[in-house]
Amino acid sequence: MYDPSTICAISTPPGTGGIAIIRCSGDKSFEITDTIFSSYTKGKRISTQPANTLMVGTISDESGVIDEVVVSVFKSPHSFTGEDIVEISCHGSVFIQQSILQLLILKGARMAMPGEFTQRAFLNGKMDLSQAEAVADLIASTTSASHKIALKQMRGGFSDEIRNLREQLVKFTALIELELDFSEEDVEFADRTSLKKLVNEIESLIRKLVESFRLGNAIKNGIPVVIAGETNVGKSTLLNALLNEEKAIVSDIHGTTRDVIEDVVNIHGTAFRFFDTAGIRETQDAIENLGIERTFDKLRLAEIILLVVDVTNPLRLIFERIHKIREKVENQHLIIVANKTDNGDQDTMRALKEMELGSNEDLVFISAKGRTNLDELISCMQATLSINQLGNEDVIVTNLRHYEALTQAHSAIKRVQEGLDIPISGDLLAQDIRECLHYLGSIVGDVTEDEVLGYIFKNFCIGK
Amino acid sequence: MYDPSTICAISTPPGTGGIAIIRCSGDKSFEITDTIFSSYTKGKRISTQPANTLMVGTISDESGVIDEVVVSVFKSPHSFTGEDIVEISCHGSVFIQQSILQLLILKGARMAMPGEFTQRAFLNGKMDLSQAEAVADLIASTTSASHKIALKQMRGGFSDEIRNLREQLVKFTALIELELDFSEEDVEFADRTSLKKLVNEIESLIRKLVESFRLGNAIKNGIPVVIAGETNVGKSTLLNALLNEEKAIVSDIHGTTRDVIEDVVNIHGTAFRFFDTAGIRETQDAIENLGIERTFDKLRLAEIILLVVDVTNPLRLIFERIHKIREKVENQHLIIVANKTDNGDQDTMRALKEMELGSNEDLVFISAKGRTNLDELISCMQATLSINQLGNEDVIVTNLRHYEALTQAHSAIKRVQEGLDIPISGDLLAQDIRECLHYLGSIVGDVTEDEVLGYIFKNFCIGK
Repeated sequence: MYDPSTICAISTPPGTGGIAIIRCSGDKSFEITDTIFSSYTKGKRISTQPANTLMVGTISDESGVIDEVVVSVFKSPHSFTGEDIVEISCHGSVFIQQSILQLLILKGARMAMPGEFTQRAFLNGKMDLSQAEAVADLIASTTSASHKIALKQMRGGFSDEIRNLREQLVKFTALIELELDFSEEDVEFADRTSLKKLVNEIESLIRKLVESFRLGNAIKNGIPVVIAGETNVGKSTLLNALLNEEKAIVSDIHGTTRDVIEDVVNIHGTAFRFFDTAGIRETQDAIENLGIERTFDKLRLAEIILLVVDVTNPLRLIFERIHKIREKVENQHLIIVANKTDNGDQDTMRALKEMELGSNEDLVFISAKGRTNLDELISCMQATLSINQLGNEDVIVTNLRHYEALTQAHSAIKRVQEGLDIPISGDLLAQDIRECLHYLGSIVGDVTEDEVLGYIFKNFCIGK
Repeated sequence: MYDPSTICAISTPPGTGGIAIIRCSGDKSFEITDTIFSSYTKGKRISTQPANTLMVGTISDESGVIDEVVVSVFKSPHSFTGEDIVEISCHGSVFIQQSILQLLILKGARMAMPGEFTQRAFLNGKMDLSQAEAVADLIASTTSASHKIALKQMRGGFSDEIRNLREQLVKFTALIELELDFSEEDVEFADRTSLKKLVNEIESLIRKLVESFRLGNAIKNGIPVVIAGETNVGKSTLLNALLNEEKAIVSDIHGTTRDVIEDVVNIHGTAFRFFDTAGIRETQDAIENLGIERTFDKLRLAEIILLVVDVTNPLRLIFERIHKIREKVENQHLIIVANKTDNGDQDTMRALKEMELGSNEDLVFISAKGRTNLDELISCMQATLSINQLGNEDVIVTNLRHYEALTQAHSAIKRVQEGLDIPISGDLLAQDIRECLHYLGSIVGDVTEDEVLGYIFKNFCIGK
């Protein structure tokens, strides 16, 4: 798995700027950069430079100087990757960045794969796997909440939680093994109650983590929102109004793989993900009906359903529509958006206002075209998940891989819990505990396959 | 002029990447960053850190850690600006970059103006004005040739040339003053011939620099090309074919101000600037005729005129067109592009081949649609300016401000030259020499007004 070649990449954002950084990591990074760098202090060489120092000089190829640069020297094992690292800080022209990169490759370095610096940090034991994954999340984070969670995970908060769980499980195993030793003598557990108490605690902790993914995923990827409603009720106008909100920033989510292009909008500090909106936008399209069916399919993925109804339509039609969507809603937050209030019939609106609402339902009157009352709608959307009450101490799972591993770990611990009640033999219990330990270990990378590693790091940006 | 406040900016290219750098320069940069940075080595502070070293730690605000960072410490006067500088290398998320920048501002730094770091380097005598201007050119350079010239200028090559010229002028002044001293005694110049020789040399050097601007400007901004020709001869097809050349990279030129959007294309290592092509592209447009008139206006700005003729048209019409453009051409390179060879009449093509060409004219047969013979056309275009033969020792003027100052300096030295022939009094000669010295001095910034400085640095990118 561990490739000993020296790797290099442009680590700063792509494009032109004041400064750019080309990073080089590996056994030969000092040797390679020494062949192209001349210090302004005569005789100074990167190879003999003390760790954590800066050097000023030039980078040259055979035809002459390419740039005046500052070089940062980090020495193994006290570096990001755990290897010798040279960072070349050059003028931020694309031409210079490319020229220096090509020169490093010519001198024996190889272009780094996406995330390869972080992968090496993991392989060299500088961080565990969940911390390495958090590096990509940290870079991709666009809101305060997603940044906070990623940083905490990178700094080991989540790893501590997993370590704690594993220690508890090992303690439990010790008790079970005690029973195994005595089992031939047909002796019962010394104290089955305390065993049950311990496994209940572990199950509860894992469950809490599994459940946190709903919030974590919404924070990381935006709260998933589906806009539903008949043709011509103003769905696309509403979406555009929300996209154009003064403080809204439309952004791509980097470092995640999704097949469908979705609009992620940061509205007043909260990210919302409007998905499968292509169908919604093309309201004039013949395939609109198909689009509506697809929208229903997506409902179960949503945290919020905005059902747009047109208050200029007959009341019977509106109620029919609300009734229809209520049948499909499971535990999502249904916001009935009564649109076109500026032309709406007063009786219709009064009747709507008097309608009884479910516990997870809201009703907001707006004019998407006139942009009236959008703030109330946004407040309503923000109330769905308690992102703003996020405490510093909470561990929130944001990573699908972690969620899946935790779900498996939870199934295993549930079997242990049930096994204690039946009761089944300590042998079988031990097998389920090993499985639970395995899945928890896969999160921090104690047990991993190359394939999983490849999958994790391929979504990183190059240069990290 | 010199503002003592501590300034900060994001210096790396805008956007998301592995690493980003926030730079802070000024008297209080150590003090300010110390309030938000905690070293992982206990007790270490930026203020007491040796120069040119790196520190690892965290940046925090009152609500907690924002990021784990590496901090580079540069001390006055041995830094880029000549002031104390701290560079914070953080994870390249836009959120983190903005958070750290806002924190620095909260703690007393101020957002840097475009180019303000370089401006301070100039004001602190770390570089002269032409070197400071070269920093922006270096960052904007997209081709090998423009990079080479900008780097040379930044490293002082052009400044040396100007210094040399000024020394010669001072020497000349000394000789003139000698005459002034003796003038009351009605004594003639000791050796008027050697004076004339010296001023001729100076004039010739300045003229060479003035003339180099034609090449320098083409290298920096792309060789200006106008595509002329009747409607439907294939102008837009040709432009698109050139834009889509395998190795062509369409790029914006940063750091320059232009009112018209132009296509700058890097074809096989040479940049070409197709300007005012909007009219050319919309060949179906009713305003096409107006566009053609505008194209004629632009001819004088071009280095290359591509006259596209359609070989399926009657020969009389083609010759008429060639005749018409020849009347407008001054000293530009006229390339007659005989298009649609795949459908062309053989007699027409033979007649064209037999046509006599002027010394600065070429004829190339192509099919823009079939993309045949485009390479010959490109070679022909590349031959216009001898960019590829650019030597390491040549000083090339690329900056319009320098060109204008040199033109003024040249007028002044010409007056001195003529004055020696008349001859006029030493007093008047001395005045012209002072003027010449003034303009040369304005290039390197020995004489400058705030207004000029403001103009120069406002075109820089922020963070440099």
